[in-house]
Amino acid sequence: MKKGTLHLIPNWLVEYATETLPTYIVDVIQHVHIFYVEEIRSARRLLKKLIPDIQIDNLTFYMLNEHENDSLKLAASIWQRGNDIAFISEIGCPGVADPGQELVALAHSLGVPVKPYSGPNSIILALMASGMNGQHFQFWGYLPNKQPALSEKINLLEKESLQKNCTQIFIEAPYRNDQLLQQLCKICNSETRLCIAANISSPHEIIISQSIREWRKNELSFHKIPAVFVLQA
Amino acid sequence: MKKGTLHLIPNWLVEYATETLPTYIVDVIQHVHIFYVEEIRSARRLLKKLIPDIQIDNLTFYMLNEHENDSLKLAASIWQRGNDIAFISEIGCPGVADPGQELVALAHSLGVPVKPYSGPNSIILALMASGMNGQHFQFWGYLPNKQPALSEKINLLEKESLQKNCTQIFIEAPYRNDQLLQQLCKICNSETRLCIAANISSPHEIIISQSIREWRKNELSFHKIPAVFVLQA
Repeated sequence: MKKGTLHLIPNWLVEYATETLPTYIVDVIQHVHIFYVEEIRSARRLLKKLIPDIQIDNLTFYMLNEHENDSLKLAASIWQRGNDIAFISEIGCPGVADPGQELVALAHSLGVPVKPYSGPNSIILALMASGMNGQHFQFWGYLPNKQPALSEKINLLEKESLQKNCTQIFIEAPYRNDQLLQQLCKICNSETRLCIAANISSPHEIIISQSIREWRKNELSFHKIPAVFVLQA
Repeated sequence: MKKGTLHLIPNWLVEYATETLPTYIVDVIQHVHIFYVEEIRSARRLLKKLIPDIQIDNLTFYMLNEHENDSLKLAASIWQRGNDIAFISEIGCPGVADPGQELVALAHSLGVPVKPYSGPNSIILALMASGMNGQHFQFWGYLPNKQPALSEKINLLEKESLQKNCTQIFIEAPYRNDQLLQQLCKICNSETRLCIAANISSPHEIIISQSIREWRKNELSFHKIPAVFVLQA
């Protein structure tokens, strides 16, 4: 029997922003009945907004818990029976700064076709808008939140960026954004460039790309605002 | 006078694949009259396909040549007069493994708002579909095409991936894909995982993610097929 497929469906960065999603996602969703999701409520909201007359009760949802083997075993048997699975992230692209990796790796190990769909990704949007090197870049996820590990990491990022002309991208828990910005202003060279892209793809989007010297002059706050940091020395 | 805005518009990865693009791109295009483009024909094809009754002759197109200061000077004066500019990449997202960086940097230096729009990006699609670490990754652009530089770089990538749990992403000119694959099979450890995502988002998409040991067994060819390489040791 032909095996099922794994479809990787991106979600909006800001709730109900369907205008940021490509139309081919709707076609997939209309043909899949089994959904693996990071968070059930956000996945249901996406489906209902994209297809207002969708019969949600006819669909099956499984929470992806990568620490429990059961949800992965179940996925294997769904594919073996020839059924497709669509994985929906809570925000943005599955598997990029987000869960999904083990489900995808399992699919490959079983010879299940994996089909990624394009969609909003805050890392790429921040990089595009930064004006920094897009030929060589590195995403670090969260930086350490304790000292001296944070200072050491910032020093390393800046040094690597300078030596390799590599743009450095990282994130922080939104309630610690201002502390991270303070540390960057304290540690980095005046000429190093820092872009902060906050509330990306929302009506409140703020994107500022300037030197550390300029960041030191203005006292901007990104407290509790989702933001991506992009740095080039 | 209020300054204009710089809109960063992604293009399809495969010609005429409008289903991979988000709908809000159409709204921007309808309100902008001045386009900076990487390649005029591909930009016109995108506009005509998205808005079939668009009056192309009423629009102004400038080739972005970042080595000539003239096109950047002109952009500055367009924004100063309060007009918007939309930059359209030839393929994928502006500024990511693509030109656009200097135009964006200029916008920031003049206080011109920069607005990035989401769209297909082969690096992120390949990473999503690889099943490899999406919390820490690095994009290297093109690897060196001469020896011993290529072997040295492959060794470095593999070592860094192992030491830092960092997924390594890179590309090659399509006519050299098979040579690169051969070198990877020759140099890397049997357990290292390699994903090749070729013809991404086209009906001929091929995504294979397996160990170097498995790559060595099957003689697959990606000759002249656009592909992204994703590696995790």
